[in-house]
Amino acid sequence: MVSNAFDHRKYTPAEPVPLTNRQWPSRTLTQAPYWASVDLRDGNQALLEPMSVEQKKRLWALLVKVGLKEIEVGFPAASQHDYDFVRWLIEEDQIPEGVNVQVLVQAREHLIEKTFAALEGVERAIVHVYNSTSKVQRERVFEQEREGIISIAEQGARWVQEYAARYPQTQWTFQYSPESFTSTELDFAVAICEAVMDVWQPTPQKPCILNLPATVEVGPVNHFADQIEYFITHLKNRDSAIISLHTHNDRGGAAAAAELGLLAGADRVEGTLLGNGERTGNMDIVTLAMNLYSQGIDPRLDLSNPDEIIEVCTECTGLQVHPRHPWIGELVYTAFSGSHQDAIRKCLHKQQDDEAWQVAYLPIDPKDLGRDYQAVIRVNSQSGKGGMAFLLERDFGISLPRWMTLELAPHVQQASERVSGELSSQIIRDILLDTFMRDAPLTLKGYRLDREGAERLTATLMRGDESIALEGQGNGAISAFMDAWQRHTGQSVSVVDYGEHALGEGSDAVAIAFVQLNVNGTRVSGMAEDGDTVSASLKAVLSAINRTEAANVVANASAPQASHA
Amino acid sequence: MVSNAFDHRKYTPAEPVPLTNRQWPSRTLTQAPYWASVDLRDGNQALLEPMSVEQKKRLWALLVKVGLKEIEVGFPAASQHDYDFVRWLIEEDQIPEGVNVQVLVQAREHLIEKTFAALEGVERAIVHVYNSTSKVQRERVFEQEREGIISIAEQGARWVQEYAARYPQTQWTFQYSPESFTSTELDFAVAICEAVMDVWQPTPQKPCILNLPATVEVGPVNHFADQIEYFITHLKNRDSAIISLHTHNDRGGAAAAAELGLLAGADRVEGTLLGNGERTGNMDIVTLAMNLYSQGIDPRLDLSNPDEIIEVCTECTGLQVHPRHPWIGELVYTAFSGSHQDAIRKCLHKQQDDEAWQVAYLPIDPKDLGRDYQAVIRVNSQSGKGGMAFLLERDFGISLPRWMTLELAPHVQQASERVSGELSSQIIRDILLDTFMRDAPLTLKGYRLDREGAERLTATLMRGDESIALEGQGNGAISAFMDAWQRHTGQSVSVVDYGEHALGEGSDAVAIAFVQLNVNGTRVSGMAEDGDTVSASLKAVLSAINRTEAANVVANASAPQASHA
Repeated sequence: MVSNAFDHRKYTPAEPVPLTNRQWPSRTLTQAPYWASVDLRDGNQALLEPMSVEQKKRLWALLVKVGLKEIEVGFPAASQHDYDFVRWLIEEDQIPEGVNVQVLVQAREHLIEKTFAALEGVERAIVHVYNSTSKVQRERVFEQEREGIISIAEQGARWVQEYAARYPQTQWTFQYSPESFTSTELDFAVAICEAVMDVWQPTPQKPCILNLPATVEVGPVNHFADQIEYFITHLKNRDSAIISLHTHNDRGGAAAAAELGLLAGADRVEGTLLGNGERTGNMDIVTLAMNLYSQGIDPRLDLSNPDEIIEVCTECTGLQVHPRHPWIGELVYTAFSGSHQDAIRKCLHKQQDDEAWQVAYLPIDPKDLGRDYQAVIRVNSQSGKGGMAFLLERDFGISLPRWMTLELAPHVQQASERVSGELSSQIIRDILLDTFMRDAPLTLKGYRLDREGAERLTATLMRGDESIALEGQGNGAISAFMDAWQRHTGQSVSVVDYGEHALGEGSDAVAIAFVQLNVNGTRVSGMAEDGDTVSASLKAVLSAINRTEAANVVANASAPQASHA
Repeated sequence: MVSNAFDHRKYTPAEPVPLTNRQWPSRTLTQAPYWASVDLRDGNQALLEPMSVEQKKRLWALLVKVGLKEIEVGFPAASQHDYDFVRWLIEEDQIPEGVNVQVLVQAREHLIEKTFAALEGVERAIVHVYNSTSKVQRERVFEQEREGIISIAEQGARWVQEYAARYPQTQWTFQYSPESFTSTELDFAVAICEAVMDVWQPTPQKPCILNLPATVEVGPVNHFADQIEYFITHLKNRDSAIISLHTHNDRGGAAAAAELGLLAGADRVEGTLLGNGERTGNMDIVTLAMNLYSQGIDPRLDLSNPDEIIEVCTECTGLQVHPRHPWIGELVYTAFSGSHQDAIRKCLHKQQDDEAWQVAYLPIDPKDLGRDYQAVIRVNSQSGKGGMAFLLERDFGISLPRWMTLELAPHVQQASERVSGELSSQIIRDILLDTFMRDAPLTLKGYRLDREGAERLTATLMRGDESIALEGQGNGAISAFMDAWQRHTGQSVSVVDYGEHALGEGSDAVAIAFVQLNVNGTRVSGMAEDGDTVSASLKAVLSAINRTEAANVVANASAPQASHA
């Protein structure tokens, strides 16, 4: 019954593209595209629980920090939230020099009117109007012929132009999307975009943006590139349009399709950080940018602190990053097999500072992204379910989070190279505690926690005899402590990962907490035990900070010897 | 400091491929490749905690069930576990007719000898020998010239041939991989494969397999296709080799690269179910197979029950499936925006049974994969953090798992269409309980749970006055109950998702449990409350089963009216 439903014969393949002189496969990319973020629009619209205003502000700040210059912030005519957010950006002067906000709107007059009202007073902005153009949308949703669909687009373009003229102080850029482009006949896609351009009369000096969405990824990536090349080579006045791509990941090809679409001549790519978006997600800007980076191309984005990107995106979308996510997943710089580990070790040993990167199994230096290379070993994998995490759990009830196991592994490996035979669980536990539990130089003397809206924390630390008073707030005790620490030290600190569990039972139970911080771009982990769960987590944070301080002392002490920049 | 490290100039782009008459971009796929699973080898080797023997057996059974005919089961010469597993397969007669086991081995004599010993008595098998061929591996790991690396391969090929001759009862297939092919100069890759073929003397009737790994995905997907086309068009006796691809996902392009590699002429693809594997993972067989399926191509795999694939893979690898995973993630068949929902509704209404699938935003019918189309709405999204999950949490302390929110949404939407204005949290709660909490026809009378290795459950159910005794075992109470139910009814039942939490505090607290089952290929959810946590979860399972029974009664009653097949 179920098997009958699984029948490929109900699907028709993508239409071949009538391309006569295909050029894109012979080209090589040499520069990054213009990037446009749709995190706050396409990304937000795909969430079970859309972002709060606070979350949107946080994500906006991140997008600006990473270096995005075109940021679609919503659909202000359709959502009061989006409207208010756009007003906040403008009235609170939150849009830095050189950053262009972009807003989406359907080709309807009252929506366009409201959209321009939302943008009143902005210095520059992109107004992005669209309508659906695919055959199935024309026939089954709008029940209109081609002419009717073109009229909708032309009329929308005219309204955009007319309302823009009412706000001459603003530097407007117009953008049009033939929505569901990849399911639209190519001659019609060209015709409708030309009709819109006829209205707008863009020039090479003042181009419009034509955005070609794979609203749904319906065909192979080479087919998408063919569609883009056909479109670009058939469009009149191509020089007066910036060709933009907007791919989705339905077939797992969003990044590859965008890369090939750039070879086919596109100038600009829309996407989201880490690929959040409708269904399977939008094109992942981090993946494509790092793909270019690893080919020696300047990505024109600062991705040097992916932990911050992960933290903010995870918090704003409620979606975790998969451990095997390209470039930034927690397992991406691990090598479990002995032959891989051996090859990496040999290559790293021979790698010179002033030569091109040449290390087997590592396409880039993990340090570029604040990562370490972690050679993960199978301690005791002979013993059934195996591994040090298993031994710690079985013999001490310590349940290591996976990221903590990755942290511990190289330390255990070093020890196993010194000792012959297998390491006992007692030794593994000693290594864990010796490495990650640090109560000097800083100790926690006491804290007070008040909950009223946000969590407000007052903590007293000791550094030797010196007492340090801290105060901060956040969603929980740890984030309030992070805030307090940042205020006190000016360091940039964020929580990468956190785990806590009870050890023992009944009145003897203590809490054991593990935390991984990112302190000024470097990851550091700590752990602690305490009878009180909050104390355990704060002490774990302090353990991590103490480990950084120790490392800095070493780093500073050895600085004079370092001669290369 | 960190920013200095982020510098693209240390990376060199992929070498252009000297291809003069490129054919692959003009081709279209019309059939599925030969599939080879490396879940039990490459997949297993990349796990923090390698699979137990029980897990391997479970995964093996799944791979066979899905229809994989070539399955790499490990590295028996390097791992006693893998050796024992191969012996179990052979001695316990676990290899069905038509299925070929494959084992990996390095080009060293003692390892090859042990590999053949592991395979003694097997009817047919693929012996897969490899050595590393890339420039960086030659220069920095092996410190050998090209000739030395070719000698290693030739010698390995000879040993494979010699030891195979000692076991003439077995039907052997030989496979060679120039490991790190994508970082190997193409003329050298061709030369070393031809040297191996000169040893093996394959014929079109008895071909060998040449497997070309993107051990690390180092370049764009079109570049990979060029490499494959170059290789295939330059290889002597191409008809005597099955060309196999083995891609990894370092740039997010594993599936697309394999698809283009097939256009370039390859015959076979190695990968894993859901893409587990070293670093960013191997090529995801489910994604590529569904990509072909959605183009009207018979994938020659039965993927009609992805829930089972998810359940087994998740349990064996310890890795969750991302909610946006192509084709099978939990958010893949959701549409949050009103215009998407409207378009889907109109298209579904017009879709005829006997015509090709034509529904906007849905590349395939979700029912093919046992999924429903879930139009997720933003109930009360005006009210701050919004949504029905928020209201249930705030007003009743009910914390819905995300998948349960998706389940509830269409029911709430239907209600909201009947009532004007917003729905109160009380009404949303009533809808939740009315829909998912069913205590008829089956109720739980009592249970007993014994833990001794596995969990053993004895339960008594009531159907009206009739008492039903069940017995089963599993890793926990729920899986033991699943087992008991399967034994009693013969139904295929598995747990897709599960969540439980305390409601209220102190001695008044009760447990609330949510469960989603897959019963004979169809997903169904249930929930229950009870003072006892185990009872709550078993009752939640029964709720789900009761809902299926109710649905079946309706289905059977209406069967006579149904006229189309």
